[in-house]
Amino acid sequence: MIQYINPQKDTWNSLLQRPQMDREQLEQQVSEILATVKREGDEALSYYSRIFDPSPVSNFKVTPAEIASQAAQVPLNLQEAIDQAAININKFHESQRVSPERTETAEGVSCWRKSIPIERVGLYVPGGSVPLFSSFLMLVIPARLAGCEKVVVCTPPNSQGNVEPTIAYIAQKFGIKSLFKVGGAQAIAAMTYGTNSLPKVDKILGPGNQYVTAAKQLLQREGLAIDMPAGPSEVLVIADEGANASFIAADLLSQAEHGPDSQVILCTPSTALATAVTDEISKQIADLPRKPIAEKSLENSKVFVLRDLETCFELSNYYAPEHLILATQNSEKDAGKVKNAGSVFLGQYSCETAGDYASGTNHTLPTNGCARGYSGVSLDSFVKKVSFQKLSKQGLENLGNTLLTLARAEGLEAHARAVSIRLNDNA
Amino acid sequence: MIQYINPQKDTWNSLLQRPQMDREQLEQQVSEILATVKREGDEALSYYSRIFDPSPVSNFKVTPAEIASQAAQVPLNLQEAIDQAAININKFHESQRVSPERTETAEGVSCWRKSIPIERVGLYVPGGSVPLFSSFLMLVIPARLAGCEKVVVCTPPNSQGNVEPTIAYIAQKFGIKSLFKVGGAQAIAAMTYGTNSLPKVDKILGPGNQYVTAAKQLLQREGLAIDMPAGPSEVLVIADEGANASFIAADLLSQAEHGPDSQVILCTPSTALATAVTDEISKQIADLPRKPIAEKSLENSKVFVLRDLETCFELSNYYAPEHLILATQNSEKDAGKVKNAGSVFLGQYSCETAGDYASGTNHTLPTNGCARGYSGVSLDSFVKKVSFQKLSKQGLENLGNTLLTLARAEGLEAHARAVSIRLNDNA
Repeated sequence: MIQYINPQKDTWNSLLQRPQMDREQLEQQVSEILATVKREGDEALSYYSRIFDPSPVSNFKVTPAEIASQAAQVPLNLQEAIDQAAININKFHESQRVSPERTETAEGVSCWRKSIPIERVGLYVPGGSVPLFSSFLMLVIPARLAGCEKVVVCTPPNSQGNVEPTIAYIAQKFGIKSLFKVGGAQAIAAMTYGTNSLPKVDKILGPGNQYVTAAKQLLQREGLAIDMPAGPSEVLVIADEGANASFIAADLLSQAEHGPDSQVILCTPSTALATAVTDEISKQIADLPRKPIAEKSLENSKVFVLRDLETCFELSNYYAPEHLILATQNSEKDAGKVKNAGSVFLGQYSCETAGDYASGTNHTLPTNGCARGYSGVSLDSFVKKVSFQKLSKQGLENLGNTLLTLARAEGLEAHARAVSIRLNDNA
Repeated sequence: MIQYINPQKDTWNSLLQRPQMDREQLEQQVSEILATVKREGDEALSYYSRIFDPSPVSNFKVTPAEIASQAAQVPLNLQEAIDQAAININKFHESQRVSPERTETAEGVSCWRKSIPIERVGLYVPGGSVPLFSSFLMLVIPARLAGCEKVVVCTPPNSQGNVEPTIAYIAQKFGIKSLFKVGGAQAIAAMTYGTNSLPKVDKILGPGNQYVTAAKQLLQREGLAIDMPAGPSEVLVIADEGANASFIAADLLSQAEHGPDSQVILCTPSTALATAVTDEISKQIADLPRKPIAEKSLENSKVFVLRDLETCFELSNYYAPEHLILATQNSEKDAGKVKNAGSVFLGQYSCETAGDYASGTNHTLPTNGCARGYSGVSLDSFVKKVSFQKLSKQGLENLGNTLLTLARAEGLEAHARAVSIRLNDNA
């Protein structure tokens, strides 16, 4: 990890650059996949499965029998761990429910909002060498809590052409019938346009590689709703001199093992702590199974020794990390200084692993600086908040002059008349 | 208006088509504007002002003196109407505040979410022949309530090269210092990239023409957050036989006068009402100032006479209108049947005009079917909901086995060790 001591603020931007990708070429490739799936439906899915999947699939829908037999392969202790995590995730997301607030803005003018479930949602669960089934939990639980009528799930087949056992287990647990072995940009296209096998949805959520993300972003322009753009995972740790260097090193490594493009940043006012953490990293990395990946990621990672904690927060808010760990003495008080972050972990026992799996918070979070303007996935992601209003005749009379004046000032006479015709009515 | 009597459901899709635009050509034009502004900053803005604005502007920032002198031109009764609308809008958006819910998901595991204002927001207020200053109110009020630090406003200059008086009045009222006379796609680019005159923002909200919308959508791929894609405005009215035909005709016309591409749809089980409404439209349109626009819009508008109210709701949910008026006997009960809509108006006195201006609800709503997956603008649009967690040592011990099992099942050993190193620590 490269160390910077009190760098000038005008260098922060370049020091904190995230890896850029060549969007143009990527979008061109993905656009072709989208157009092909739109045009040829299931045939295109079969074609891309032959190209991209280790074991090509032509019956995309996972049968109840396959779900049952694959789910049965999950060892009991893993089933229990998934169940326990689900309980906590459910509890936290349940607490996000809001009851409709009804307000009388003027006498006879009632306004309220109601959360209405998005009817048809698509969940994308990435596959690859190790399928991240925890992401499925993080999506399916709020989808079920919200009451979405149709929950469609796409995930790439494994090397035997089957659905991964853990994913089958979770599908079974939550009664998911529409589970499809389709991955990549083609899965996103299929859920957007619909094919003979796959139903069309209104919103697609879930992480994915750069092809999946590009597909979601391109299709957003056609009216598809998505959760957020996803980029490489990242953590920023703010630590004071009393922090535990071994714990911090372990946290930084847990982020670094995600992928070679993961971002890992430590900010501290303490030179001693900075040194202790880098020493600990060298020790702890030695026997990590994913050492090569973590090493690669650490090459782009940074330690900032800054004047004081305030400056650490300033840099963190500037960077807007996906995960922010506050390894400080007064972490709860310091939490008030957070302006931009996806999810925040306070104190020395709140490791990112807890939030990744089982504390209850959602791990689908804004990366790549998007934490400045986006929230992570929550119950809100699966509902629309629709506004309602009911005016009595008295209510409309109370607003009458205001409405007539404003509508006419905007030159919209028919708007004004929709009011006056009601006010002049003697019924 | 074309009338359809009980059309087959498999024809709904084609009958309810919205006007399509040629996205490719539009995006090409807009991409060029974005790239030029990114490269040349203020110079590009001057260049586009010379091309697009009726009176070219080179000092984009509106001075306090101009704000004051323009604001002073707003007639007193209009000032009062704006003030009254602002009170109601403020009241309704204030009611959307939620206090952080703190949940103990397991003993020693506390999780909560906090609404943190988006630091820098950009509001786009369209200009044109008649500037829709009401949109400015709908954006600036929740921005102020949310506590956004920096509120940047762009709006095209009027034909004298000045900021519109009503917009100056609202800027003054809400203490907006960063008001710029820049319009179109170039304004969106300037607020995304920043120029010497204009600050960079994290999220851009507000309606606009197809160039503005395309710019927002294209820049979203670069991490900019936006409110929603905007399309032509639309209303769908569901009316039973007891409804007042004159009121409904007035509502349909108020939507039709927006623009030639506005969409106006009536659904009713009553042939008599359908006829009465179309007769009323012919009468009421006669002396409307914007008759040519309304006529053009009505050409694409439709009356559906359907078997029963249930089918009317089914069609409405299928179409997902921006505005939905329920002119039915039991409108409050019927409101429960709404699945997809931006904003809903109940009963015979809740005309759309009320929500457009002054009842308190927001009029920045999802169009073009986006109501299936998007909410309208609200206080939520100006905050991020950031999750926080704090675990005690006991809390981490309670989650310990679950975390170790799940992390290892995903092959992420460093994630597991960030837990075990803490559990084995005897400090």
